[in-house]
Amino acid sequence: MSFVLARRAERMNPSVIREILKVTERPGIVSLAGGLPSPDSFPVEAMRAACERVLRDTPREALQYAASEGYGPLREWVAAQLGERGLAVEASQVLITTGSQQGLDLVGKVLIDAGSGVAVERPTYLGALQAFAPYEPELVSLECDDDGPLPEALAAARGARFLYLLPNFQNPSGRCMSAARRAVLADAAQAMGLPIVEDNPYGDLWFDAEPPPPLAARAPHNTVYLGSFSKVLAPGLRLGYVVAPKAICPKLLQAKQAADLHTPGFNQRVVHEVIRDGFLAEHVPTVRERYQRHRDAMRDALAKHLPAGCRWNVPRGGMFFWLELPEGLDATAMLPQAVERGMAYVPGAAFFADHARANTLRLSFVTVPPDEIERGVVLLAQTLAQALKEAA
Amino acid sequence: MSFVLARRAERMNPSVIREILKVTERPGIVSLAGGLPSPDSFPVEAMRAACERVLRDTPREALQYAASEGYGPLREWVAAQLGERGLAVEASQVLITTGSQQGLDLVGKVLIDAGSGVAVERPTYLGALQAFAPYEPELVSLECDDDGPLPEALAAARGARFLYLLPNFQNPSGRCMSAARRAVLADAAQAMGLPIVEDNPYGDLWFDAEPPPPLAARAPHNTVYLGSFSKVLAPGLRLGYVVAPKAICPKLLQAKQAADLHTPGFNQRVVHEVIRDGFLAEHVPTVRERYQRHRDAMRDALAKHLPAGCRWNVPRGGMFFWLELPEGLDATAMLPQAVERGMAYVPGAAFFADHARANTLRLSFVTVPPDEIERGVVLLAQTLAQALKEAA
Repeated sequence: MSFVLARRAERMNPSVIREILKVTERPGIVSLAGGLPSPDSFPVEAMRAACERVLRDTPREALQYAASEGYGPLREWVAAQLGERGLAVEASQVLITTGSQQGLDLVGKVLIDAGSGVAVERPTYLGALQAFAPYEPELVSLECDDDGPLPEALAAARGARFLYLLPNFQNPSGRCMSAARRAVLADAAQAMGLPIVEDNPYGDLWFDAEPPPPLAARAPHNTVYLGSFSKVLAPGLRLGYVVAPKAICPKLLQAKQAADLHTPGFNQRVVHEVIRDGFLAEHVPTVRERYQRHRDAMRDALAKHLPAGCRWNVPRGGMFFWLELPEGLDATAMLPQAVERGMAYVPGAAFFADHARANTLRLSFVTVPPDEIERGVVLLAQTLAQALKEAA
Repeated sequence: MSFVLARRAERMNPSVIREILKVTERPGIVSLAGGLPSPDSFPVEAMRAACERVLRDTPREALQYAASEGYGPLREWVAAQLGERGLAVEASQVLITTGSQQGLDLVGKVLIDAGSGVAVERPTYLGALQAFAPYEPELVSLECDDDGPLPEALAAARGARFLYLLPNFQNPSGRCMSAARRAVLADAAQAMGLPIVEDNPYGDLWFDAEPPPPLAARAPHNTVYLGSFSKVLAPGLRLGYVVAPKAICPKLLQAKQAADLHTPGFNQRVVHEVIRDGFLAEHVPTVRERYQRHRDAMRDALAKHLPAGCRWNVPRGGMFFWLELPEGLDATAMLPQAVERGMAYVPGAAFFADHARANTLRLSFVTVPPDEIERGVVLLAQTLAQALKEAA
């Protein structure tokens, strides 16, 4: 063919998760793979009423081209809400994005040159790796414990363009970073001149206690903060936001203009209409309760059914369990057998920027109902037992 | 600050048009600047009914994460509709994008390396220049007549990654490429191994006769085709599409996944619900009639009021008049005076990849009603008369 691909296209790969999701759309499969919020949590009636009001009151504005920065009142809402969490920002620092995935793309576009260092957690969010990959970074994978990156690992990130962190109920590990670790990392990164990109899609989904304030609150001039409405309202609207230090706002905005002019104004107005009068204060606790029941179901099922030698922590929020299987098992190789039995998970290898650990996997507890969760875990346990028998 | 910007960020600039739009939001300004569709053309009632149906019948699907390729029935609709225009494609070749601006970004991301040649028309669409700029192309600006790029100019594009064309009622020139020119360019580009990126946001907005079939119909394996729902329904939904030869579909899809996972599924379903039963066959003719009345009003006002020495063609569709002012006038320098008098336009210089012609400007005839169009043109004429007096 006459098309010559850009060098960066070599770095692009199909998402493992999205490929798995296609397989698992087969009826009868219990999919613990995708990070799909429970559709039972979608506020359909509130959405319906908001669409009705927006199209009645401001159809000409909602359906017209709009500012690349985003809808003013929504930006103000985001700034006010972050203020309550200790992150003092102006609405002018808030850029509304087409999902927080777009925020990752814009950050990569503006900050990464081919060969630039970018430091990530071990493991880290696959979607971020995908967003950054076309900009050809040299990824530096930081050693982590159950609390996130080890402070002594930070030296390896020296000279990187930024450190990408997901401190709240991380995807895939489920871990939540302590206040102490946040303070150490935020201060050390700032002292090193290492910017932080802090991604927070799951922070609202806590079960026992609200997570500590964001790292951005401690190092506001050194941190780009990303948020999302996907997990507290619905992902199909594709609404997220980037909050950036003023110095880089103009470039992020220009990148946004070039990328899609603006995020759908209709969606922004509908979501603002839904949330403006405190809807989330009522709604989010119901999502938390729902997901806590799911989490409990998976916690109990894992404890009851999984063979000896598997390790996991019980997440205190978010959407995921992260499993370490006995050494020698390969979750990628095992997946077809799991699907054959009727369940799916995401092999952990995809979440490592380097030195992937083959004996890890991610389970989502939010998509399927609790009774199906147990069924899925039983099928996983059978798959593991079979693999262990074969390995013995 | 600790942030180090990527080299490509130097190429990013604020959109001249969007900056002008901010000024012209002042009440009382007759803005002939922005290419904003008339809000009177938005099918609000159809949208309202479609939102209602989608949220009643498929809320769980519409509000959930969805396939990066786009909503299947919408992709099939696009393929069927293009088939009627002579462009035979499969639904699997259709990628739904967040506005056709995103299509331009994805094309740039997948096809442009730093220093790659990209050939464009003279003048060309500003938004395409902005979308491509971060990928650091070497732009080659092709000489054009009223029919688009001159066939003999094509040699200058040899070795370029692609030729970007907007054949139907081009933004900004308003010109529509003849069938003969399309054939020559499509064949010559194919023979040279020069891919074409064909952008068609305005093709449905014809007044007298439907434009000739797309270049993609003649050279389907050598052409990426971009379309949009912004001009026939409403831009605030941000819905466009890319149709690509099968060989590059996977890379465009991977770039799309990385950019925003998928275009809002809710919007895709709502638009499909609006158009599925032939709505556009009724609706688009009303938009054409409306814009033809606007076009006539501007044609008459320009003929009546503009000083001697100005040149323009009367567009047979689309949204724009392109004016050439007497030599020596500088439309950029003159803009503040026009705004002072109470009207706005877009200086033509922004639409040139090189050797900008200062004595050009673009007027949109679709946003404001016909009587305001005349008032805007009168104010423009006064501004020009003053500038000519000062230049004399």
